[in-house]
Amino acid sequence: MPGAFAFTLTGRDGQARTGRITTPHGAIETPAFMPVGTRGAVRGVTQRALRATGAEILLANTYHLYLRPGDALIAERGGLHRFIGWSGPMLTDSGGYQIFSLGPMVRISEEGARFRSHLDGSLHTFTPERVVDIQAQLGPDIAMVLDECLAAPATEEATARSLDLTLRWAQRARNRFLELQAGPVAGVIVSTPGQAQFGIVQGGVHRHLRAHSAEALQAIGFESYAIGGLSVGEPVAVMYDVVGFTAPLLPEDRPRYLMGTGMPDDLVECVARGIDLFDCVLPTRNGRNGQAFTPDGPINLRNARFARDDRPIEEGCPCETCQGHSRAYLRHLFQAQEMTAGTLTSVHNLVFYLDTLKRIRQAIGFGMFEQFRLKFHRHFSRTPHAS
Amino acid sequence: MPGAFAFTLTGRDGQARTGRITTPHGAIETPAFMPVGTRGAVRGVTQRALRATGAEILLANTYHLYLRPGDALIAERGGLHRFIGWSGPMLTDSGGYQIFSLGPMVRISEEGARFRSHLDGSLHTFTPERVVDIQAQLGPDIAMVLDECLAAPATEEATARSLDLTLRWAQRARNRFLELQAGPVAGVIVSTPGQAQFGIVQGGVHRHLRAHSAEALQAIGFESYAIGGLSVGEPVAVMYDVVGFTAPLLPEDRPRYLMGTGMPDDLVECVARGIDLFDCVLPTRNGRNGQAFTPDGPINLRNARFARDDRPIEEGCPCETCQGHSRAYLRHLFQAQEMTAGTLTSVHNLVFYLDTLKRIRQAIGFGMFEQFRLKFHRHFSRTPHAS
Repeated sequence: MPGAFAFTLTGRDGQARTGRITTPHGAIETPAFMPVGTRGAVRGVTQRALRATGAEILLANTYHLYLRPGDALIAERGGLHRFIGWSGPMLTDSGGYQIFSLGPMVRISEEGARFRSHLDGSLHTFTPERVVDIQAQLGPDIAMVLDECLAAPATEEATARSLDLTLRWAQRARNRFLELQAGPVAGVIVSTPGQAQFGIVQGGVHRHLRAHSAEALQAIGFESYAIGGLSVGEPVAVMYDVVGFTAPLLPEDRPRYLMGTGMPDDLVECVARGIDLFDCVLPTRNGRNGQAFTPDGPINLRNARFARDDRPIEEGCPCETCQGHSRAYLRHLFQAQEMTAGTLTSVHNLVFYLDTLKRIRQAIGFGMFEQFRLKFHRHFSRTPHAS
Repeated sequence: MPGAFAFTLTGRDGQARTGRITTPHGAIETPAFMPVGTRGAVRGVTQRALRATGAEILLANTYHLYLRPGDALIAERGGLHRFIGWSGPMLTDSGGYQIFSLGPMVRISEEGARFRSHLDGSLHTFTPERVVDIQAQLGPDIAMVLDECLAAPATEEATARSLDLTLRWAQRARNRFLELQAGPVAGVIVSTPGQAQFGIVQGGVHRHLRAHSAEALQAIGFESYAIGGLSVGEPVAVMYDVVGFTAPLLPEDRPRYLMGTGMPDDLVECVARGIDLFDCVLPTRNGRNGQAFTPDGPINLRNARFARDDRPIEEGCPCETCQGHSRAYLRHLFQAQEMTAGTLTSVHNLVFYLDTLKRIRQAIGFGMFEQFRLKFHRHFSRTPHAS
């Protein structure tokens, strides 16, 4: 199939790898970070500004787009890329995480998940097959299967039971995906021929459950695999451990996607454990709240000590925000509740994340990743700093 | 003085004129429209996006910037241009309009206006001299004098009494302006040498009061003159009348600034009456609320009929929004309450206003302004239309 999904490993340094994912809408250099555009828009950042950050792939959310404006409406418009005006690669999550965040508004059965819309309380059912159909209509380059996302902490028994359901769902999702690939199915528009489908490894913090999940998903056979169920409140050290023993269980020749992670130092640590693909709302969500990332760690631009600070957020940063504006001006914009405060800080944070990944790729290319990692940690502190 | 204020008339067609204003921060082709960046930022539009719209001059607000972050803080940062990261020409209003909008929180005397901050209730006094000092510190290229803005409707007697006070204030403002120009004054930083000061013609709807005001201000002598006290709720026809008889009372060889106007057709009509400079919040305020301007008039993007409309707001418009996005997507963004909805619509509206002014200048240059005006009105309707 022309322009279909492929992955080429281009380098490695320890467990860290560089590679190139090709998709129907273009290529992505890995390790890569995906900005989150839940409703087909990164909050406060226009598509044009997003392209200027250097983002190569954008994530959107099946649950939100299914409810509004609807996958049928988007398919009629030619699919997500045309609808939102983003011509590069896209990935949609399955909506599982959002549904299971609805708490008492969701009921799970073997068939799927029945839930009430957070918008109007209307009843909906997501089955593994239905989610494949919705994503076929939305037309991202990469679609994620529906999985059950357990509330943490869960017992080992509950985790195992949930994992088994998730694996049965994965098989059904794959069957449906192949059915759509085989030829036209009434009522489903395939917006992006060549779409790839990723399975999601679950199993909580239990090594044998993660191993079982990884093995079973590979037996089903997906274009690639993600690690789910992390960054949901567990200690960072536990997350690193689980990533550390799960990533090597996944195929060498496929990109490994760690869902929903994380802080910049998490990205460095998880690349060190073999992860190739990340997404996270932190650069934009925290940016809207005044938190800006620097090589020394985050700073809070609302702080009074920035009122007379003529420096940019980060000296030498090439972004629109740092080239044009001081911390003093950004603080003023936050104080005055100007929308551009969140926009400008989000743009910088995205550039910070994307540039960190670029430096990671360069370091791996030069076989210097371990030096990069140590140097990064020597500077970067998670707690807001005073410089 | 190098780079000081100047105006060159470059063409005329009936009462309509083209010209070029030069300022310490560059030139402006007139007739010109100034986007409003009240707090040193156009709401939802970054400076970089604003430059892309083709805006040549930006308006900011003395009242808001004086209260927060303060003119002293801005002067320490090198003035408004450096503080906000806008290197082109700027104009600040005097704060009069904002103060007199405070209603019961303002007390007027011969000395000036005593008011309570809308932010924290603290007491402040704006005298004509103080407002000159504040604007010297802010450092726009053009500063407006403090005037009394009467609530409409006012009796002729009240208007005349208010006008006399405004004229005494204008003389005091000019005296202070010349004092600052003559040499250093303790406690006042002059952020932009070569700043120009505009007087404001008041007098309500009364021809003889407007004439008296225009004459008295020219006797004082300012770099140029504005028409104030309009677009405050009077019928459009009355506004056109007042502009029509007031503009010719102002010097031919100076730019004439009509404050706070208006809808696109108002701009056309007021250019026809000899106006050179406009400012208005409509393109951005209405843009944030979903109203987009087209050559046929405004449309409301929240309307359900745009849900499946794949056309841009305006066919052939070169702006980021029209080049990249459909009405269907913009409607989705408004429905989903995404910040970029307001940003993208504001950007288009600013481009619509600025392009209208550009077409006006071209028409005047070709001696075809009357044809342009008729054609504009044939298409443009103020009431939201259905196409």
